[in-house]
Amino acid sequence: MGYVRQRAPRGTAAKTMADGVTVVICDHLPRLFSEPYYARLLSAAGAVIAEHGTHLMVTTVTPTSSVLPALSGAVLIVGARERHPLAIKLSTSGVPVRNIGRPPHDLKLPYADVDNLDGGRQAAEHFLLSGRRNVAAIGGPPSLPGARDRLEGLVRTLRQQGAPDVPVAYGDFTAASGTHAMQWLLRHAPGLDAVFVASDLMAAGAIQALRRAGRKVPADVAVIGFDDAPVARHTVPALTTIRQPVEELATVATRLLLTGAAGIDPVLPTELVVRESA
Amino acid sequence: MGYVRQRAPRGTAAKTMADGVTVVICDHLPRLFSEPYYARLLSAAGAVIAEHGTHLMVTTVTPTSSVLPALSGAVLIVGARERHPLAIKLSTSGVPVRNIGRPPHDLKLPYADVDNLDGGRQAAEHFLLSGRRNVAAIGGPPSLPGARDRLEGLVRTLRQQGAPDVPVAYGDFTAASGTHAMQWLLRHAPGLDAVFVASDLMAAGAIQALRRAGRKVPADVAVIGFDDAPVARHTVPALTTIRQPVEELATVATRLLLTGAAGIDPVLPTELVVRESA
Repeated sequence: MGYVRQRAPRGTAAKTMADGVTVVICDHLPRLFSEPYYARLLSAAGAVIAEHGTHLMVTTVTPTSSVLPALSGAVLIVGARERHPLAIKLSTSGVPVRNIGRPPHDLKLPYADVDNLDGGRQAAEHFLLSGRRNVAAIGGPPSLPGARDRLEGLVRTLRQQGAPDVPVAYGDFTAASGTHAMQWLLRHAPGLDAVFVASDLMAAGAIQALRRAGRKVPADVAVIGFDDAPVARHTVPALTTIRQPVEELATVATRLLLTGAAGIDPVLPTELVVRESA
Repeated sequence: MGYVRQRAPRGTAAKTMADGVTVVICDHLPRLFSEPYYARLLSAAGAVIAEHGTHLMVTTVTPTSSVLPALSGAVLIVGARERHPLAIKLSTSGVPVRNIGRPPHDLKLPYADVDNLDGGRQAAEHFLLSGRRNVAAIGGPPSLPGARDRLEGLVRTLRQQGAPDVPVAYGDFTAASGTHAMQWLLRHAPGLDAVFVASDLMAAGAIQALRRAGRKVPADVAVIGFDDAPVARHTVPALTTIRQPVEELATVATRLLLTGAAGIDPVLPTELVVRESA
């Protein structure tokens, strides 16, 4: 390690080392601390960046912000939605950049992602194998490619197996939005016997709504979350979920950014973790 | 507001607006997410910065780091310890800068602080008024001026009132370090009947150690924390603590930084909040 670090890096990599890495989170600042996904991602990215002897900056921009930070060095983008002005600007700027997640439609950005489509597929198959027929879903923001992919994987698999249409409500990844979305689903699709929720925090909120409505989990309604966040072990019942390898995603994306590797856009596998809720 | 924002700021303030504000946290990156003080501070600073139409960057440097980030714009420093290379560099750099907390010894940095000394004094007086005589303390890192001031306020007041010497153990503001420090105090000062703890998270850890040792809080040992963090409402018993106005501190410091005001180093009052533990 010592030897490698002392060799002067060349080209893109040299500039990146000198100017550091800025992680741009496309979300509101307080969410940086309330959404555990960001803590996991940034801690892992920070470890790789420290290994390389350079430094990490973090900034947030709101999804519609037109005030763009002055960026130097290399950039990791997290949570870019359709038509985000910063993502559009960076895709043609020549700044070393990598998107965490499949980039919004039509943008040519190097990226690293987890297999959200396959996560949705695994949830659908687990519901079908356990005899659920009336599956509903709580999606994340529809302008976020990864959130769309999770739903798409679920819906496509259920359709292939001849299951009925999937009623969908949308949340913003907070627990409160999961509660609200679940209440909406119970009013509009009272016959549901399973629900796939695009994040564990929203799933925790959905379970609360089900309990208040007198529906037993999993006897009446099976619930599958997404993330395998710490909260998944603390819900009652413990949450069956799709694990995404957040730390590995951040590590791989940061390494590719720092080495300036082009033409490689890895997609890491997701995995069903069966606990008690489905 | 709209009118004020459209006027071009001048001099220092103009440069700050263009380049944004970097908050440098002198701590390890994962602590950014596990220590609620940082979330409160950054969310409040971010709100002021957004009001001014500029942007916030966050970076962490370890207390002994010699790799310094390339900084542009204005800088808020948080958690700088004695002889921190970054604080020393910034104190003579000409970059607009403000320290959160009294700066380390001998450094000429503008700052904003809370009245840590008076917080310690209030804790001492509350113990004395409730008849406690054998007061111990769990301090934060002794190289941190604010942590030293909390202890100093306590010890000075107890001494003035003729109380015995104060046994002190030190932690790093984590709950685990509070548990460990409390265990040390119970071995070395088994006659203690009160303990002042320099952060609420450490106090939560200390209460766990007291329970495991069979000491009742507050009947056997009174406990006073520092912060009034969310955890203070959730300990059993609920934590009596010294409230520091973290959001107000961040707001005031950020406003002074953005306006380039010199010669004003505000110190905000702290306040005893009596709950159940003392």
